[in-house]
Amino acid sequence: MTQHVCPDRREREALLGELAEELTALLDWLASLAADAGGGVTRLLYSPSWLRTQLALRERMAASSLDARFDEVGNLYGRLAGADSSAPAIVTGSHIDTVVQGGMYDGAYGVAAGMVALRYLQARFGQPRRTLEVVALCEEEGSRFPLAYWGSGSITGARGFAQLTGLVDGAGVPFEEAMRGCGFGPGSGSLSRRTDIGAFVEAHIEQGALLEAAGAQLGLVEAIAGQRRLRFEVTGEANHAGTTPMTGRRDALQGACAMALALEAEALRLGAPLVATVGRMEIAPNVPNVVAGRVAFTVDARHVDEAQLDAFCAWMRLRFEELARERSLELGAEEWFRESPVPMDPRLLRELGAVCAEAGIEAQRMMSGAGHDAQMFAACCPTALLFVPSRGGISHAPREYTDPRDLAAGALVLAELLYRLAYEEDAP
Amino acid sequence: MTQHVCPDRREREALLGELAEELTALLDWLASLAADAGGGVTRLLYSPSWLRTQLALRERMAASSLDARFDEVGNLYGRLAGADSSAPAIVTGSHIDTVVQGGMYDGAYGVAAGMVALRYLQARFGQPRRTLEVVALCEEEGSRFPLAYWGSGSITGARGFAQLTGLVDGAGVPFEEAMRGCGFGPGSGSLSRRTDIGAFVEAHIEQGALLEAAGAQLGLVEAIAGQRRLRFEVTGEANHAGTTPMTGRRDALQGACAMALALEAEALRLGAPLVATVGRMEIAPNVPNVVAGRVAFTVDARHVDEAQLDAFCAWMRLRFEELARERSLELGAEEWFRESPVPMDPRLLRELGAVCAEAGIEAQRMMSGAGHDAQMFAACCPTALLFVPSRGGISHAPREYTDPRDLAAGALVLAELLYRLAYEEDAP
Repeated sequence: MTQHVCPDRREREALLGELAEELTALLDWLASLAADAGGGVTRLLYSPSWLRTQLALRERMAASSLDARFDEVGNLYGRLAGADSSAPAIVTGSHIDTVVQGGMYDGAYGVAAGMVALRYLQARFGQPRRTLEVVALCEEEGSRFPLAYWGSGSITGARGFAQLTGLVDGAGVPFEEAMRGCGFGPGSGSLSRRTDIGAFVEAHIEQGALLEAAGAQLGLVEAIAGQRRLRFEVTGEANHAGTTPMTGRRDALQGACAMALALEAEALRLGAPLVATVGRMEIAPNVPNVVAGRVAFTVDARHVDEAQLDAFCAWMRLRFEELARERSLELGAEEWFRESPVPMDPRLLRELGAVCAEAGIEAQRMMSGAGHDAQMFAACCPTALLFVPSRGGISHAPREYTDPRDLAAGALVLAELLYRLAYEEDAP
Repeated sequence: MTQHVCPDRREREALLGELAEELTALLDWLASLAADAGGGVTRLLYSPSWLRTQLALRERMAASSLDARFDEVGNLYGRLAGADSSAPAIVTGSHIDTVVQGGMYDGAYGVAAGMVALRYLQARFGQPRRTLEVVALCEEEGSRFPLAYWGSGSITGARGFAQLTGLVDGAGVPFEEAMRGCGFGPGSGSLSRRTDIGAFVEAHIEQGALLEAAGAQLGLVEAIAGQRRLRFEVTGEANHAGTTPMTGRRDALQGACAMALALEAEALRLGAPLVATVGRMEIAPNVPNVVAGRVAFTVDARHVDEAQLDAFCAWMRLRFEELARERSLELGAEEWFRESPVPMDPRLLRELGAVCAEAGIEAQRMMSGAGHDAQMFAACCPTALLFVPSRGGISHAPREYTDPRDLAAGALVLAELLYRLAYEEDAP
């Protein structure tokens, strides 16, 4: 790199070092604005730490000569106006919210990389032809309210105020009240919905260990996996653990365990990119000396091929029914979340591959098992998603970590792609 | 029956009908004093409903010409003084406390059967040779504080005030404060510890479905099973459900499920009277889209043969370690409760068998998988435990039920045994 941003190899090494320092400082600062008592970062939508972060970011954007503004849901844009004001804007960024006790890279990295890239491009190349924007999306995780992608969904039209009725957080606070408490809501800023975006590029941490295992510095996402989330309820009979013989039992917990193990075995047999997880189990009465009478558990299944995902889920339902019958248990099933696989833009993907090859950065095409804001944008404009490695694959935890050199490589590749999209006459 | 209490068969039928009515009325009344909103009975130690019940029972005992008195922990005795004041007392009864949302028979039946038996014996035979007492034990379940057998243990010396330091209930109320709030505690009544008990006979519901399955009206308990309760903690690595391939996972929940199923399979293979239960499981973080990083679960294992119980628990620990290793999980184990099997008095057991045979009542020798106050008394005096069937084996639930005819049969057999122990010159 790359022909534009930094063609000289020695200079590039120096630049990567500077970017690493700049990104580390920016990410440390973002983390410090929402540090929690557990050593992690907790920045829930419309919470005080969230508001504090967005307001501080707005100042920081303005100080970087970006035109900073909020939309009506609290998405924060930093804008570098292009010479051609009628051309669609090139947007980069990610979400600023976190899970409870999350890490300092998830989401924040995409915001930081975007800010650093725009600062560098502006300093080196001045005004772009097309408008360049970095966005700190207000929400993606669904950690506070049972609604995810509020930020990117509001921009792309998949989310709207009409969906908020009745939504409350764990403490019973209504979504709309929390939003208004931070000064947002209908009419509070520019309309969230946009139709003037020409491309969206998101940088994000991998949250998996594939890149680390492959020794690659960057992941170029071909598609975001489709998801099915189901809730199963197994009903047996609660009974005395001492007086109920083993043969007379209708133990809901043993039934649920048999289902979980069957699911794991089949997912292992079918192999990647399928993943299937039992992450949550609620047992009643959940007492040491009582045979469990009822167990509810969740299944999260993902695959980039929708037909194979559907086939797996159909197998699962039949197999669980069979196991329930064998154990005289009743089984209820409910699919409560479904998302189709989302392919990223093939042209941008090729361009990213070319940029990495030219810069001598080891990159790998891959699937994203996790959902990302990019999937919302992909429905509206050419979209690319770029991963940097996560040490040990750990994410959604305080130990989340990415090597500063990888952070810098991601920002450099991002800057080059943004250059080609916003500065070149014949943008890809 | 039986030669003494009711030798005539036709008269016995009438008596059984009367006893059934009397017991039903008494049990309904006891339930009404602690009826909860869920349709069950909730009478936790030293709670208002508990105090109300014991005070009402004291009045009822006094009205039945029994000498009613509390000891210092709140055990309530109804006494029928014997002619020989130096002879050890014959005591019957059970506990008055319940689990949360329990049934109306567990414990209460033994108190009611004792009261009915004493009333009948006194009315028909007058003063006994040896003192006869019915006791409403203050606590057995361990439902409010993490300490069980407080009533029978205080009498037999296995429990004492020194054990109460630091014990609090779920709301943080100290044990001693709750006790004093009801007017009990050191010096408040007669000393709880007794050494003048000649025999203890407990009537109780089976809380299992063995008698029902066998078509028997009464169960004669040979021994109370020994128990081991363990807590296992499985540690893997919490990770993203979408980005962590199946092969790279250290899923603590799948590991715990494999252990639970292995336990069940081995317990089924070894067969009765062994029972083993995983009743409680706590999963962290317990979120649908995160591979579980840590699972704690309990095992409750019971057997009447201590050596076999120990062998099973040793096998379990080894097998769990093996399964943890296979899955690269860490495993912690802790035994937090241990109770040896307790045999009932063989002479009283034979006597009960004889009584049932003479009365033409279908009885069956059996083990008790559940713990009972009888096991505390067995360490101090000849002790017998008599079961009446539980419909569907259901207990610790509002649907707990015993046929009034069975309630009556139990009370009749109890009365006959008490007659032989307290009225006959050559007591068994």
